[in-house]
Amino acid sequence: MKRNVLIIGAGGVAQVVAHKCAQNNDVLGDLHIASRTLSKCEAIIQTVHEKAAMKVPGPFHAYTLDATNIEAVKTLIRQTGAQIVINVGSPFVNMTVLDACIDAGAAYIDTAIHEDPTKICETPPWYGNYEWKKREACKAAGVTAVLGVGFDPGVVNAFARYAVDACMDEVHSIDIVDINAGNHGKYFSTNFDPEINFREFTGTVYSWQKGAWQENKMFEVMREDDLPVVGKQKSYMSGHDEVHSLSNRYPNADVRFWMGFGDHYINVFTVLQNLGLLSEQPVTTAEGLEVVPLKLVKAVLPDPSSLAPNYTGKTCIGDFVKGTKDGQPVEVFVYNISDHKDAYNEVGSQGISYTAGVPPVAAAMLIAEGTWDVGHMANVEDLDARPFLGLLNKIGLPTRIKDAAGDRALDL
Amino acid sequence: MKRNVLIIGAGGVAQVVAHKCAQNNDVLGDLHIASRTLSKCEAIIQTVHEKAAMKVPGPFHAYTLDATNIEAVKTLIRQTGAQIVINVGSPFVNMTVLDACIDAGAAYIDTAIHEDPTKICETPPWYGNYEWKKREACKAAGVTAVLGVGFDPGVVNAFARYAVDACMDEVHSIDIVDINAGNHGKYFSTNFDPEINFREFTGTVYSWQKGAWQENKMFEVMREDDLPVVGKQKSYMSGHDEVHSLSNRYPNADVRFWMGFGDHYINVFTVLQNLGLLSEQPVTTAEGLEVVPLKLVKAVLPDPSSLAPNYTGKTCIGDFVKGTKDGQPVEVFVYNISDHKDAYNEVGSQGISYTAGVPPVAAAMLIAEGTWDVGHMANVEDLDARPFLGLLNKIGLPTRIKDAAGDRALDL
Repeated sequence: MKRNVLIIGAGGVAQVVAHKCAQNNDVLGDLHIASRTLSKCEAIIQTVHEKAAMKVPGPFHAYTLDATNIEAVKTLIRQTGAQIVINVGSPFVNMTVLDACIDAGAAYIDTAIHEDPTKICETPPWYGNYEWKKREACKAAGVTAVLGVGFDPGVVNAFARYAVDACMDEVHSIDIVDINAGNHGKYFSTNFDPEINFREFTGTVYSWQKGAWQENKMFEVMREDDLPVVGKQKSYMSGHDEVHSLSNRYPNADVRFWMGFGDHYINVFTVLQNLGLLSEQPVTTAEGLEVVPLKLVKAVLPDPSSLAPNYTGKTCIGDFVKGTKDGQPVEVFVYNISDHKDAYNEVGSQGISYTAGVPPVAAAMLIAEGTWDVGHMANVEDLDARPFLGLLNKIGLPTRIKDAAGDRALDL
Repeated sequence: MKRNVLIIGAGGVAQVVAHKCAQNNDVLGDLHIASRTLSKCEAIIQTVHEKAAMKVPGPFHAYTLDATNIEAVKTLIRQTGAQIVINVGSPFVNMTVLDACIDAGAAYIDTAIHEDPTKICETPPWYGNYEWKKREACKAAGVTAVLGVGFDPGVVNAFARYAVDACMDEVHSIDIVDINAGNHGKYFSTNFDPEINFREFTGTVYSWQKGAWQENKMFEVMREDDLPVVGKQKSYMSGHDEVHSLSNRYPNADVRFWMGFGDHYINVFTVLQNLGLLSEQPVTTAEGLEVVPLKLVKAVLPDPSSLAPNYTGKTCIGDFVKGTKDGQPVEVFVYNISDHKDAYNEVGSQGISYTAGVPPVAAAMLIAEGTWDVGHMANVEDLDARPFLGLLNKIGLPTRIKDAAGDRALDL
């Protein structure tokens, strides 16, 4: 049993985490939030109080923190008495926060893989470059670290684990499809920090097929699905964290990730990339000013957090899992539908932040009550999927399943 | 009879002007070139000597000049003894150079309308905002000033004058079509300074139709023509200088300008404009750096002067002129075909610079020999078109005509 949560980060996902922690503070205990900018943390706490989100009376405090400083993170963990740290800061701070948790003996949760700001795309498996090097240290310290427990990676890893465990003897392929069929009403916008967002699409696309890493370029391989609620949607094979852990657990299966993009998004992205406007290397203007093009593009694009109030439509994210059961081929689609407007009404964020922010709170609750407090490092598919999906059914992200027997809520 | 030429400017068009003046220095006398950057002037003179372009031995000197400073321009005119000034500098310096010529008694030639750097698009007729206010001063001083004598404006104004004079009793419409069917081999580039180039397409499109100024948006009105040599081409009604003078001379005719754009150019332009990346207003990055987006776009695009060596294909620029002759409808297409590679081989520039740079030299030669030394301000259509087009036939820009009688070289 662990209690008291320290949230690191103060962006759109952190706001959802804060609200969901507040809604479950009877389980989670005292709440704390820290980021580089104190005012952002305070603003989030204010929205929590405006929505009267605290389930039971209790503290929710804000702190300034440089999360790249291990000692500072350790000091804050000890000062707050937090036994669970939810890291939803920039992907550049994972390793310092993880190290601090190992030293301080706090459970660690994050939602995306560590990134080195100077590298666009690393060699697979990505977890092997950073996080997994700390497996032994976690085990030795008895520290629970659950990696990548947002929606994707995270819930989709649990979808795969559930499908394999419940529906088949042997798994042949896992295809994760992420469709945002929402409309933010702007000419163009990314759904989260453009600098991080574009990094996902400018490197090599790695997939695990035929027992080996395969390389493709972005927008090279397309599929089209007729999906529940959102209908016919095109998606493109993309690099994504969960391919790098699921392929480790299911090496005999093909593991691919598919991100949905409209033609308009692809066109704008392609123009910007071909002109060199997504570069992180500075260029010099005729007037002698050094400018990093990507930082200017970020400055002219809408602030992703400004999209939430007018965002409409739904997301559909799920796993097509194929295999055999009793020698017969079997295929299931395990998925979730979320609604941007509902998310905004509940926690003041759009659906992309909502689907990423609810799962780490479910993980924190499972650690708090002991079910997932395993005392070592784990990716989501290493843990029992049933209690996780069962809890998500209750706190805002219900799972559905579609197979030969029909399309229905997943009853756990 | 006037002699000795001062060229102001040192860009791609100035290079063509320098070469063509050199090829005709027996008529034009001593040659001088001045710009803000002395080294650019010297580099141009060097290419002239490399091509052995001087027809007869004679001087060609370079100077540093701030052309926004009237006194500096006057001093240089007097110092050089230039009786003809060819202004092919930035469109922001027209008025200071014109004033200096009026004071110094030198003939003035330019190729594009004056622009105020702080204004994107002014009220029509554009010449009325600046140049035409100096008509009386030119007349009083007996100074010849030929405005807008590049290709378009310039040669196309003479095409219109010729067509009306030679082929019809009454003119009903003048449609100027400018097609660059060349290929520079880059993903995207403008053909001259992006800052100036994009200004042409970000304001209101003015046309003269039904005896009044009409307003449209860029890319709103399209036409498609099957043209000599370059074939089927789409073009879009655009704002352009010559519409503002031809409508003054031919108020009963519809006068429109059409610029050819490929779908790819329009797409890139539209993305950049919609994202705010063509703005001249500074934005501030997350790091606090103030950047003018258009200046960064200019920095990532190819330097237009770098395109020339690999530019292939042809331009087709001409006037569709409709009217009546002896009560019967008549239509002619007066046009020129130029080749990018030929231009590079001759003067080291691409075809767009070539077509813009040869006409002001023809104008200077006509002033030098007296034919066009009229002692007042004139737009090209105010002057006899025959000697001008006849001279252009000989020095690199031959005119062709297509009408009911066929497609043939225009014999003058």
